Amino acid sequence: MNAYKIIEIKKSVFENNDREADRIRETLKNNKTFLLNLMSSPGSGKTTTLKATIAQLKDDFNIGVMEADIDGDVDARKIAQTGVKSIQLHTGGMCHLDAGMTEQGLTELGAHELDLVVLENVGNLVCPAEFDTGASKNAMILSVPEGDDKPLKYPLMFTVCDAVLINKIDTKSVFDFDDDAVVQRIKKLNPKAEIFFISAKTGEGVNIWCEWLKNQIIEWNK
Amino acid sequence: MNAYKIIEIKKSVFENNDREADRIRETLKNNKTFLLNLMSSPGSGKTTTLKATIAQLKDDFNIGVMEADIDGDVDARKIAQTGVKSIQLHTGGMCHLDAGMTEQGLTELGAHELDLVVLENVGNLVCPAEFDTGASKNAMILSVPEGDDKPLKYPLMFTVCDAVLINKIDTKSVFDFDDDAVVQRIKKLNPKAEIFFISAKTGEGVNIWCEWLKNQIIEWNK
Repeated sequence: MNAYKIIEIKKSVFENNDREADRIRETLKNNKTFLLNLMSSPGSGKTTTLKATIAQLKDDFNIGVMEADIDGDVDARKIAQTGVKSIQLHTGGMCHLDAGMTEQGLTELGAHELDLVVLENVGNLVCPAEFDTGASKNAMILSVPEGDDKPLKYPLMFTVCDAVLINKIDTKSVFDFDDDAVVQRIKKLNPKAEIFFISAKTGEGVNIWCEWLKNQIIEWNK
Repeated sequence: MNAYKIIEIKKSVFENNDREADRIRETLKNNKTFLLNLMSSPGSGKTTTLKATIAQLKDDFNIGVMEADIDGDVDARKIAQTGVKSIQLHTGGMCHLDAGMTEQGLTELGAHELDLVVLENVGNLVCPAEFDTGASKNAMILSVPEGDDKPLKYPLMFTVCDAVLINKIDTKSVFDFDDDAVVQRIKKLNPKAEIFFISAKTGEGVNIWCEWLKNQIIEWNK
């Protein structure tokens, strides 16, 4: 038997996604469950970042992960190795998760028993930004190889995120990436965004991001 | 005045995208205009690859480029510097181009006077794969930093493309990327896919890709 379930989620039936998302958020708050919606392009290092984050937080919190993908179970397999509860959500070709789809995952995962649930959204900088999933906070990863111009081209994603992780800083020697320019571009869209420079691979900067996330969870439970 | 126009394209009114795409393809064929639909994740190097391709083909063909983005004109500005005709298409938040949207761009560009038109689609491995744009051929770029597991997670994109360019091979020293594994995964989805290993930055392998593209254009005009 696999260490994780694969769930084929269905298209939502709810007409008003924002209202549904608010309802989910309220239930999560009442249950003292923090939901992090983690978004990015394909291949920016969501799963590796998540593994590094779990390693730092799993002694403090009961953690669960929902891996959303068009197909496959590559990520759920990796997360299952960390020992936390994980499920793989198949979106049936859908390019994002909305509130209703997220709720199907939360139910399958048994979210009410968990302190921290991470939704690893479908790799996509466009569509996931348009749908409130009901998350407590939104975070995104931009990796150095993708370039510092991405806030100019995908502004909504940078606008809706509470935290932006700049990942793969260990590869800077082979890419032209301007730290100051990317910070300026993000802050122009979203002055309140918290920005973290990390390498999920080497671990550099991950503790600062985890400290921030930990404080958000504590705040959520007050 | 800018060297390129910015066009706000409108949502299509056509009910049957496939029929519309076939109609566009027929018109292109009659006009001896080859349309390449170039797709990829954000930041995989579409524009750099396109610049390297234009440099090799612009003496042989009359080339035009349509840069599709949610926002901004970063790419159109870069392409305008190559001296070929280019326009920036703004999709109004849409995550892909369909046939009708492509046709609006072709009309604005004056495609009937061109031999080769490249549509640089919105950076996204999911939605653009679902819509036939009317292109003569589809190509995609997967960059080394994104990882060799992408065909497992975004199978449709790899299935609909005639050519797959593995870009940024100059950065292999800092990433784990298995050439054999990626080729096997692509071929399993799409046995006919042509696979090219390139570095748009250093120019390595670009001539082999351009040779293939040139032959496709010649074949199209027979």
